[in-house]
Amino acid sequence: MEISIITIGRQVGSGGSYIGHEAAKRLGIECYDKRLIEYASQYGNLDEKAVRYAEEKRANPFFYTVPREAQNERTGRGIPINDMVFNLQSAVIEELAKKPCVIIGRCADYVLRGRTGIYSVFIYADMESRIKRICETRNLTEMQAEAVIRREDRERKKYYECYTGKKWGTKESYDICLNSGKFGLEYCIDLICAYYKK
Amino acid sequence: MEISIITIGRQVGSGGSYIGHEAAKRLGIECYDKRLIEYASQYGNLDEKAVRYAEEKRANPFFYTVPREAQNERTGRGIPINDMVFNLQSAVIEELAKKPCVIIGRCADYVLRGRTGIYSVFIYADMESRIKRICETRNLTEMQAEAVIRREDRERKKYYECYTGKKWGTKESYDICLNSGKFGLEYCIDLICAYYKK
Repeated sequence: MEISIITIGRQVGSGGSYIGHEAAKRLGIECYDKRLIEYASQYGNLDEKAVRYAEEKRANPFFYTVPREAQNERTGRGIPINDMVFNLQSAVIEELAKKPCVIIGRCADYVLRGRTGIYSVFIYADMESRIKRICETRNLTEMQAEAVIRREDRERKKYYECYTGKKWGTKESYDICLNSGKFGLEYCIDLICAYYKK
Repeated sequence: MEISIITIGRQVGSGGSYIGHEAAKRLGIECYDKRLIEYASQYGNLDEKAVRYAEEKRANPFFYTVPREAQNERTGRGIPINDMVFNLQSAVIEELAKKPCVIIGRCADYVLRGRTGIYSVFIYADMESRIKRICETRNLTEMQAEAVIRREDRERKKYYECYTGKKWGTKESYDICLNSGKFGLEYCIDLICAYYKK
């Protein structure tokens, strides 16, 4: 099986984003995560701030339609801004996936479903390791870190399930699930790289 | 992280048992699955047929206690036969795990919890691949195969959850989950072997 694209889903604090970036670096391919926001806003000719606000969140019924000034052929008319951002990001992902790369989050596994050579990974870890990581990377107390993890995981879950119709974080939605809390980040990177090359 | 024991949980028809046996062969270590029944019955001085009946099933309230003639120090008195078989198998697993090996099923990941060097794997696959495999290996029709898969998976799930208090087949209960339907069995064996040696 030839692999050309790695998509990474991840729990907050599992180090999934770091793993994706490092794996891409070692494999000499591009890695896309937050940069997709920038690309999507350019592609849709939209304000990056509005896109960033709506990104990886499902549609909010109180902040519903695309502002009139942003309505064009690519963004669509009268649809929730979150749906529009999802559509724009999906178009960008399909374009980028013409070359080997790593894509973090953004339902890329779903957007690229049915293609061959897609390797969808989910990174998870025990709560203790995740709290530790978030405390370090975001300079928070343990209580704050736990609250952040719960809130952001909930947002990711809702976003993923709203747009893909699949369950976020259950093994059936992915090809491989790795416990970074047990293995450590380096081990996960090694594993992904070794089997990408194979 | 040094790995010395691989425990394998698996959905029926995912090829998990084959993967475990082949990985052990390549690594030059022992693999235990149904042989544990034989060892457990020898260890408890019990009839192998009774042990086989109770094995990988949770306690049945209508077939409850250990037969009087089987009661001894190792089997215990007045406990369900399934609990006794679980206890015997656990004792055997703890003994066998003094040397590097692969253990398939039997809640080995739980029995050996807290030890270092344990690498717990769960093998799963889409229903279509599993039906195909069961049709071939057990010479059944597709409908029969699906019924077998549902029934045996249900038994494994109940058994695992009854004795471990963990959820069977959810990623949190394991260190790595592999989709053999996507990767193919050989790929899973390669992956396990490569990271065992590391």
